[in-house]
Amino acid sequence: MTKIKATNITWHEGHVGREEREKLLNQRGALIWMTGLSGSGKSTIAYTLEHALVQRKHLAYVLDGDNIRHGLNKNLGFSAEDRTENIRRIGEVGKLFVDAGIITITAFISPYRADRAVARQTVGAGNFFEVFCNTPIEVCEQRDPKGLYKKARAGEIKGFTGVDDPYEAPENPELTLDASKVSPQEAAVMLCEFLEGAGRIPALGR
Amino acid sequence: MTKIKATNITWHEGHVGREEREKLLNQRGALIWMTGLSGSGKSTIAYTLEHALVQRKHLAYVLDGDNIRHGLNKNLGFSAEDRTENIRRIGEVGKLFVDAGIITITAFISPYRADRAVARQTVGAGNFFEVFCNTPIEVCEQRDPKGLYKKARAGEIKGFTGVDDPYEAPENPELTLDASKVSPQEAAVMLCEFLEGAGRIPALGR
Repeated sequence: MTKIKATNITWHEGHVGREEREKLLNQRGALIWMTGLSGSGKSTIAYTLEHALVQRKHLAYVLDGDNIRHGLNKNLGFSAEDRTENIRRIGEVGKLFVDAGIITITAFISPYRADRAVARQTVGAGNFFEVFCNTPIEVCEQRDPKGLYKKARAGEIKGFTGVDDPYEAPENPELTLDASKVSPQEAAVMLCEFLEGAGRIPALGR
Repeated sequence: MTKIKATNITWHEGHVGREEREKLLNQRGALIWMTGLSGSGKSTIAYTLEHALVQRKHLAYVLDGDNIRHGLNKNLGFSAEDRTENIRRIGEVGKLFVDAGIITITAFISPYRADRAVARQTVGAGNFFEVFCNTPIEVCEQRDPKGLYKKARAGEIKGFTGVDDPYEAPENPELTLDASKVSPQEAAVMLCEFLEGAGRIPALGR
């Protein structure tokens, strides 16, 4: 049994609304969904944007292969069915993060249009911003930070997006970036301006 | 192409650390894991605690059946195998929320000791606080807010925890509450004091 010390608390019925959390955070929740080939710059841009937002005192969080594929989705492979379930779960987690008021950035190849459409529907069209990393495959393949294209060309990896598995480009993304033309920093600035325009973060004071 | 307006931003390599987000939020991430029978008060206490924390300007978020069972885990049933996967996924999502700096409260029956141990390990022992809602089953059954005990006693629901499926009580929970002895408001105050003691939120100024 405990003594009640905090007698000045007003108790509420029901759930805390998303708006209350957003007011606390001085931002509105959003899901920035980066899609594009391996090596197209998704993760680098995502983490650069996260830094820029946190520096502006906004709560941002990146979901990518590092924290999803080794955790929540470690029981999924790369079959079409498992890719679909992978993206479905990421969309559902994104919905929770957005409801918590967080500016959430996902960085997954997410090659299938139908899967991305499910994620958009799950999160809610007004909260979902698709960013197409449209970096030419030649550039992605030249970068090949994890040596995956090399293995795919050698036949050591099967079903690799862009080599022997399709990438279905977005038809109507909110933003398109080409990492062979803009630096991650330039991309992050563009995305911050986009978030300002979409009413997710206040514009910087001058 | 965009003009770089924000020339005063320092760009960082790598990921934003949990500590940076926690500094922004003036709190440390934590997972309050409520466990207990149906009707033992888990959800009510969870939402009352969430309100108390948000009123104190802390970012808190509840994961419960409403937002998990109809979303991320809608492809899971109530077999022992599916219950285990249910709790595994909740533990993984909880880990992400804690990494984002949020005080996260889960409200699931989570009847199996081994499953809760996996969640504790996933989230990390220092971030995981097990709260046992040890309300007598007679009280839970009398409350029966969703009419589930009645259906289980009538044999209309099979595998119902406490009726024909076991509940394995925690052996060493961080906190034990009995909803027949404390109100949700009293429980929330106890939990706030617990979070203060655990260094997750600063003590209230007097």
